[in-house]
Amino acid sequence: MKLLIIGGVAGGASAATRARRLSETAEIVMFERGPDVSFANCGLPYHIGGEIKDRNKLLVTTPAKLHERFNLDVRVRSSVLAIDRTQKTVHVRELNTGREYDESYDKLILAPGAAPLRPSLPGIDLPGIHTLRNLPDMDRIKAIVDAGAKSAIVIGAGFIGLEMVENLIHRGVQTTVVELQDQVLPPLDREMTTPLAEVLAAKAKGVTLLLSESAEGFESADEEIVVQLKSGKRLQAPLVILGIGVKPENQLAIAAGLEVGPRGGIRVNEQLQTSDPDIYAVGDAIEVRDVISDSPTQVPLAGPANRQGRLAADHIFGKQVRYRGTQGTAIVGLFGKTAALTGASEKSLQRSGIPYRMVYIHPAHHAGYYPGAQAMALKLLFTPDDGRILGAQAVGGEGVDKRIDVIAVAIQAKMTVFDLEEVELAYSPQFGSAKDPVNMAGFVAANLLRGDHPQIDVAAYEKLAGDDQPFLLDVRTADEFNAGHIPGATNISIDVLRAHLDELPRGRDIVAYCQVGQRGYLATRILLQAGFRVRNLSGGYKTYLLWHPAEAK
Amino acid sequence: MKLLIIGGVAGGASAATRARRLSETAEIVMFERGPDVSFANCGLPYHIGGEIKDRNKLLVTTPAKLHERFNLDVRVRSSVLAIDRTQKTVHVRELNTGREYDESYDKLILAPGAAPLRPSLPGIDLPGIHTLRNLPDMDRIKAIVDAGAKSAIVIGAGFIGLEMVENLIHRGVQTTVVELQDQVLPPLDREMTTPLAEVLAAKAKGVTLLLSESAEGFESADEEIVVQLKSGKRLQAPLVILGIGVKPENQLAIAAGLEVGPRGGIRVNEQLQTSDPDIYAVGDAIEVRDVISDSPTQVPLAGPANRQGRLAADHIFGKQVRYRGTQGTAIVGLFGKTAALTGASEKSLQRSGIPYRMVYIHPAHHAGYYPGAQAMALKLLFTPDDGRILGAQAVGGEGVDKRIDVIAVAIQAKMTVFDLEEVELAYSPQFGSAKDPVNMAGFVAANLLRGDHPQIDVAAYEKLAGDDQPFLLDVRTADEFNAGHIPGATNISIDVLRAHLDELPRGRDIVAYCQVGQRGYLATRILLQAGFRVRNLSGGYKTYLLWHPAEAK
Ligand SMILES: Cc1cc2nc3c(=O)[nH]c(=O)nc-3n(C[C@H](O)[C@H](O)[C@H](O)COP(=O)(O)OP(=O)(O)OC[C@H]3O[C@@H](n4cnc5c(N)ncnc54)[C@H](O)[C@@H]3O)c2cc1C
Ligand SMILES: Cc1cc2nc3c(=O)[nH]c(=O)nc-3n(C[C@H](O)[C@H](O)[C@H](O)COP(=O)(O)OP(=O)(O)OC[C@H]3O[C@@H](n4cnc5c(N)ncnc54)[C@H](O)[C@@H]3O)c2cc1C
Ligand SMILES: CC(C)(COP(=O)(O)OP(=O)(O)OC[C@H]1O[C@@H](n2cnc3c(N)ncnc32)[C@H](O)[C@@H]1OP(=O)(O)O)[C@@H](O)C(=O)NCCC(=O)NCCS
Ligand SMILES: CC(C)(COP(=O)(O)OP(=O)(O)OC[C@H]1O[C@@H](n2cnc3c(N)ncnc32)[C@H](O)[C@@H]1OP(=O)(O)O)[C@@H](O)C(=O)NCCC(=O)NCCS
Repeated sequence: MKLLIIGGVAGGASAATRARRLSETAEIVMFERGPDVSFANCGLPYHIGGEIKDRNKLLVTTPAKLHERFNLDVRVRSSVLAIDRTQKTVHVRELNTGREYDESYDKLILAPGAAPLRPSLPGIDLPGIHTLRNLPDMDRIKAIVDAGAKSAIVIGAGFIGLEMVENLIHRGVQTTVVELQDQVLPPLDREMTTPLAEVLAAKAKGVTLLLSESAEGFESADEEIVVQLKSGKRLQAPLVILGIGVKPENQLAIAAGLEVGPRGGIRVNEQLQTSDPDIYAVGDAIEVRDVISDSPTQVPLAGPANRQGRLAADHIFGKQVRYRGTQGTAIVGLFGKTAALTGASEKSLQRSGIPYRMVYIHPAHHAGYYPGAQAMALKLLFTPDDGRILGAQAVGGEGVDKRIDVIAVAIQAKMTVFDLEEVELAYSPQFGSAKDPVNMAGFVAANLLRGDHPQIDVAAYEKLAGDDQPFLLDVRTADEFNAGHIPGATNISIDVLRAHLDELPRGRDIVAYCQVGQRGYLATRILLQAGFRVRNLSGGYKTYLLWHPAEAK
Repeated sequence: MKLLIIGGVAGGASAATRARRLSETAEIVMFERGPDVSFANCGLPYHIGGEIKDRNKLLVTTPAKLHERFNLDVRVRSSVLAIDRTQKTVHVRELNTGREYDESYDKLILAPGAAPLRPSLPGIDLPGIHTLRNLPDMDRIKAIVDAGAKSAIVIGAGFIGLEMVENLIHRGVQTTVVELQDQVLPPLDREMTTPLAEVLAAKAKGVTLLLSESAEGFESADEEIVVQLKSGKRLQAPLVILGIGVKPENQLAIAAGLEVGPRGGIRVNEQLQTSDPDIYAVGDAIEVRDVISDSPTQVPLAGPANRQGRLAADHIFGKQVRYRGTQGTAIVGLFGKTAALTGASEKSLQRSGIPYRMVYIHPAHHAGYYPGAQAMALKLLFTPDDGRILGAQAVGGEGVDKRIDVIAVAIQAKMTVFDLEEVELAYSPQFGSAKDPVNMAGFVAANLLRGDHPQIDVAAYEKLAGDDQPFLLDVRTADEFNAGHIPGATNISIDVLRAHLDELPRGRDIVAYCQVGQRGYLATRILLQAGFRVRNLSGGYKTYLLWHPAEAK
């Protein structure tokens, strides 16, 4: 068996090492265009920021070590230029020497990754405009920061863009973020990104966030870059970083006549075979099945890339495998805040036309009575009929990663919100709560589906106007009410509500709310049983403020 | 509907509030013998230790608030003395006044909890010997510490015992721990507790740990307590805390003729009804079904107690419910270390005669290249045939809670180790790894079951003697080998192994090992394919040191 692998990082290197473990006799050659294999892409921003001091730490392993330990033939600075499927060869150029040659294969794995998008805007190729994919990119950006750059412009507020902002600020670089959409971190639903926008705004002297704004062109001036924005604004800085997404490296595949999807991802079956069964493809370059929508998508993440590489090797060496699809579990840290998601977002469900219900809660990450409890906002999406979990998003501090991971497994297991009610998690005051946030989300969602706890979310509430306008009941204390409330609300504290039922309208919809939803729920129960038509505003005033951050004082 | 509830803390108060949400009209009376309801039992040690400064924080709510918000009739200092099932009444004594009365019920929930064990040893009732269950207990212990106690003796190294040790040390109290078994934290398998014993030993000046030792009697001397130990040793301190377990408060139930199990837990069905369908029981007082062994057990934990209380109320108010059993997910923090478990331990599987396989791994809690990665030891138990997860234990620092919670959900979902291979968790360098510890455990276990990765564990290895004695191959570097190795091992580094196959015995079993198992696995693959009979020592030298901590230097 002669196995060639194109691309030597997450997907490629994982396939190569797994292949060797499965077969001592296979001839395994791995081609990598760049100077390094097996590097920690995900660590690049943190070396620029100084968190990861030693550059060598980013090299998880080296060609020499892979040869020594795994008997792999690793060829760096070697670009595969073409695949000849009839001859079963690839055509390779040694970038250092210019030498070109063919190499034959029995099986071929494509793991070329995805390249940062560089839209064809005027001036896009000016020096000073950078993307970040590998160590040479990182070195170039770091050199500019090390040389004393005082400011930078990051275009795109996705995962990599935000990580760059954090790390540039760590280095004392004033950073302007330009994002086309009206929110940071577009994979999340907009309201869930409010805490991130706030933490950026809190870096008052360091970060400028420009939403609903885009770059239209670039010029050079004073050895810096001027970015022209759609609004007419002009920004100038010595360093511009593009973080607006990636596109699959599919040129080889297309030229070889392999199928690709509409957004460019190489098409593979559940065994990760392309339309040519001797050619596999893995990682950022491929189209995967979204486990929620069951439709093709592209999810450039390291975990899936690594596991796909392993599975491709498995299949080549005769194992039964089935890639289950990707659910898009992802996370980012930003100045001490954490945002994470798994499964579908509300907007992706809307795009796919999948019916859903949802709840918001705002639990503490561990028992409130133990010092240091940090609040998080947790949004849970599920099917309206049987409560199967479709997705979750959480934003907060500590403990966000844990809850999203727990729900990620629940999604994999096709669990329902009724299962979340019963989840038995580890509890001791510094680690969680007797009713963990995951249980709470389950309770609130299950109560909704059982009809015990009718809820309305902020967006739906705000769409009601005129005759549909409900009576809005704030059941918090007078102090809480006076510190800020939803316009038009009447305040009757939950603790005296039973005595004031005669002040509430019969025959008109009521929406109750409190700070996080819990007292609003109790009010809803009281009023329902007293014959009122009432719903609770899911997640309460805290969720309202996610939609209307400007109203927070 | 008139609902009486006996016990006003985790199970009882949760049932009461849930019942009110389900019915505004029910008459709900909750009896509590002590002065407080709804208090944070789990926080008691941390108020003694000073971590939770404000005693009021331990009162999650109060009778007055429960009355105001939930219209509950909460009667503290009210002990229920008897249940008359034919009259459907309970007999109550007001402890403050001595007044006694009967109260009738339609439905009754028993949530009396479990009382700390106080074995009938000579002198057990001496003042100075304390148990910790409620705020008055805590106040008494704290007063002794506040008064300047220099030393204390904690009998029992379970969850509460260890938490007391940590908190006493925080207060500068020299503490001796006496534990009957040969390990701390008996619910865990012994080797997994080694890091805890080490962290206790590291408090050289503060903690003395006496294992396989027990108290046989108590005397008073110099206004202190002298503890006589089985070994003949005598310890003296002004404060003795008993933390040797709890027993269900079943007297009322027994007197009323309700069924109890062999260890005293009140018997309930899946709807939490006792043998009298109008009487429910929840929490520490009951016998539950162990979800792994499917046999009755007692698991005194707050999460299950809370959820059972909620379910009992549900059933009373007409909902379909089914308590799924308890899997015993629990956690403890000890001087910065964390130990947690879910599902069955190895010894509990042995006790139940359930066949199992297991693996050990020693992953870092997040990407190794990002600063601050903390190692953990993770033990995964699963069925030999289909790989269904039976249990997991982890000991380390950060990230232990997350992995045990993830596996806890996997157990609930009846997932297999093959599912763990595919778990898609949130990865960014400060939160995890592209191949998370949970994936890694899945890989190692799945490789075992697929026959690709034969493994042997330390205990089994050490049982092999004489002709069965395998050739022991250490595939680490010479430096690692010289720094400490398993007696009898031959050192051939993994990186030169392929060139030294002729030095290995054919026709004799080989056991390979490295530091954590990963290189040993590769060696196993190389040797297997070269026709050797070889197994990898699961978890490598680090696991060996869990069994033989004295050999660590
Ligand atoms: C800055 C940054 C931060 C990230 N952070 C995270 C994170 O926190 N969490 C997360 O899950 N993911 C993160 N990712 C994404 C993650 O790194 C990728 O999903 C993963 O590396 C994809 O693996 P891959 O093998 O498909 O592609 P890559 O890792 O990109 O490897 C592909 C390799 O193939 C080589 N190649 C391409 N074409 C050829 C050719 N024709 N001939 C030879 N070689 C070729 C390329 O040079 C490249 O090195 C991050 C990515 C970046 C850039
Ligand atoms: C110090 C300590 C630390 C703990 N730490 C943890 C932890 O970290 N994690 C965890 O999961 N669990 C922990 N627990 C266990 C947890 O607190 C219990 O599992 C939980 O409280 C059980 O709830 P319950 O309602 O069954 O009983 P309890 O909470 O004990 O409440 C029962 C109440 O019933 C009252 N009562 C009993 N009989 C009568 C009667 N006849 N009449 C009137 N009242 C009566 C008692 O006074 C008692 O207050 C800890 C417990 C203690 C004591
Ligand atoms: C590191 C890399 C070369 C893969 O190498 P690898 O040998 O598969 O190493 P890993 O560290 O992933 O270990 C996984 C293997 O070791 C085994 N293993 C791990 N711990 C083990 C233990 N304690 N005992 C026994 N086996 C163990 C696993 O079973 C698995 O083997 P398998 O795939 O045959 O089941 C590749 O993932 C890579 O290049 N990574 C860096 C790039 C990258 O991922 N970038 C994106 C993220 S920043
Ligand atoms: C606090 C206590 C009285 C229970 O009160 P509770 O009203 O059930 O309150 P919780 O805080 O547990 O909240 C859970 C309820 O609020 C609802 N809820 C929580 N957050 C919500 C939100 N954001 N929006 C709407 N509803 C919410 C849940 O659905 C659940 O209601 P349900 O049971 O009807 O589904 C009881 O658990 C107790 O006494 N605890 C302290 C003792 C203890 O547990 N000790 C051991 C651990 S230290």
